[in-house]
Amino acid sequence: METNVALDTLEGLRDIINANLEALIEEQCVIHGEVAEVSGRILLAGGKRLRPILVHLAYELAGGENLDEIMPLSLASEFIHTATLVHDDINDEALTRRGEKTMHALVGQPKAIIGGDWLFVQGFGLGGRYRKEVVDVMASFCSRLASAEFSQLDHVLDLSTSPEDYLEIVKGKTAGPFAAGCQGAALVANASEPECQALFDFGLELGIAFQLVDDLLDIRGDERMGKPRGADIYEGKMTLPLIHALTLLHGEQRVRLAEIIRDFDDSLFDELISLLENAESLSYSEILINNHLERALQHISVFEECEAKQLLKHVVEMVQNRHS
Amino acid sequence: METNVALDTLEGLRDIINANLEALIEEQCVIHGEVAEVSGRILLAGGKRLRPILVHLAYELAGGENLDEIMPLSLASEFIHTATLVHDDINDEALTRRGEKTMHALVGQPKAIIGGDWLFVQGFGLGGRYRKEVVDVMASFCSRLASAEFSQLDHVLDLSTSPEDYLEIVKGKTAGPFAAGCQGAALVANASEPECQALFDFGLELGIAFQLVDDLLDIRGDERMGKPRGADIYEGKMTLPLIHALTLLHGEQRVRLAEIIRDFDDSLFDELISLLENAESLSYSEILINNHLERALQHISVFEECEAKQLLKHVVEMVQNRHS
Repeated sequence: METNVALDTLEGLRDIINANLEALIEEQCVIHGEVAEVSGRILLAGGKRLRPILVHLAYELAGGENLDEIMPLSLASEFIHTATLVHDDINDEALTRRGEKTMHALVGQPKAIIGGDWLFVQGFGLGGRYRKEVVDVMASFCSRLASAEFSQLDHVLDLSTSPEDYLEIVKGKTAGPFAAGCQGAALVANASEPECQALFDFGLELGIAFQLVDDLLDIRGDERMGKPRGADIYEGKMTLPLIHALTLLHGEQRVRLAEIIRDFDDSLFDELISLLENAESLSYSEILINNHLERALQHISVFEECEAKQLLKHVVEMVQNRHS
Repeated sequence: METNVALDTLEGLRDIINANLEALIEEQCVIHGEVAEVSGRILLAGGKRLRPILVHLAYELAGGENLDEIMPLSLASEFIHTATLVHDDINDEALTRRGEKTMHALVGQPKAIIGGDWLFVQGFGLGGRYRKEVVDVMASFCSRLASAEFSQLDHVLDLSTSPEDYLEIVKGKTAGPFAAGCQGAALVANASEPECQALFDFGLELGIAFQLVDDLLDIRGDERMGKPRGADIYEGKMTLPLIHALTLLHGEQRVRLAEIIRDFDDSLFDELISLLENAESLSYSEILINNHLERALQHISVFEECEAKQLLKHVVEMVQNRHS
């Protein structure tokens, strides 16, 4: 990797990613005008940059040494992620994200559909620079992502959603992109097949844990989410704590939980939490989170100790600390 | 090109493209389920396959000889085209296309947004197999397409839209994809820079003519469109005949034309046509169409006579005959 003191911390890496995203948007605004300005505004409005950070660190852990070689894939992962958020927010009728107005709230739905498309195109333009194997990994996770979104829509307010359905959706929507980013980065670094697999598995486990944490934070409320507490419940999304409680509770409690989910409002939060606690659903989610994070760490244990590995462990800790 | 008797006619070429699209969708349905089924149904519902046909013929004219080498780019052009139709139909609230239900009419808006995304992903997955130059051509026309769609939305019912605004939008939305398809195909065939440019220019002129014909057919009505007559006017789209007539008419006639455009319904068709004829706007469009088609032919005159060139001339004639 190029000598750059800032790269030895996650913050430094995030700064470099942000600087590259900003430069790219600035350049695109000159060529494409409003669509680049509006979409760029959403892209640059914040975000942890977790996906591009993982791409960089996986690349480095797999032996990659050239920042310029991996940067397009890293930026592509963030463009594609943001594109899916823009389209999801339309479908969820969400008005805020990361504490800012969503794109359709800013410029209306027609432009937001096109703006999301534009972000996708940027992502694929960047990702398309790599060899076929890498492009296939990207195209495949994006296809699976769309398939998982279909499935999620089918399960809205479906109280018979099973933990297996849930895991399938999470693997497609959140864990798949993490896993593909890590695997793609390993391929770019010309890592061995077992190394590529190990990094794919690492990303998958981390991504599952990440989504489980997101689900918990939606229920417990957390100002860092930048969206209203309980948004998932209002949208009828069947998250794991709900699925778990619906499975374990019976009699009156289960009937009441079903009523609350079907017709949720803010005044029902305390009752919902108390039902989830009766079923021990929140602590069940916490146990699962820790299991998946431990497995993630096991997958990278095959790599020698190095700075990138330390930083990846730090990312794992961050995900763990978000919920605790 | 591989020996295949069917390839010496446009119909034969279209059959091969359709067979490849069908095979790809069938394969994807196994992996991705409903999203592939629904999106595939829209993709396979018909269409002239003009963009992939142009990709094949431009490739062959530029000296390309391997059907397998160009097929992914050809299919990519149709996937991306269909993706934009799906999202446009949402924005236009159009219920039919090619005589069939649009995707959002079939499965609702949320799934149609995701289905369009899935089609985009397939297109970029296929297009991403080529070298950076080709990917850049694709990404750049797709970005410009999004930018033109923004501009078109801004000009809805904007009676001050100029012919220059219109041409800019048409170059982005219709002619750009034609031009990029031809240029990309020439690059894949390793054509010289002037040959790539000639094929780009050919596609651009043909695409402008194609859109002008579409605008005329919308006003005159044509069952081959598979959508209701006057759809553009109902959607507030400022097509060239309207822009031309608004520029040339004055006094009461201009006032009345503006009223008709702002508050259109089927009972006003005869009056609209009579105003457009007073301004000679339909014949003006016809002259422009012929000019652009002539220029298209000039751009390919640098290539030696061959079967592909004959077929491209045939495509030019088809575009010409659609409006006459």
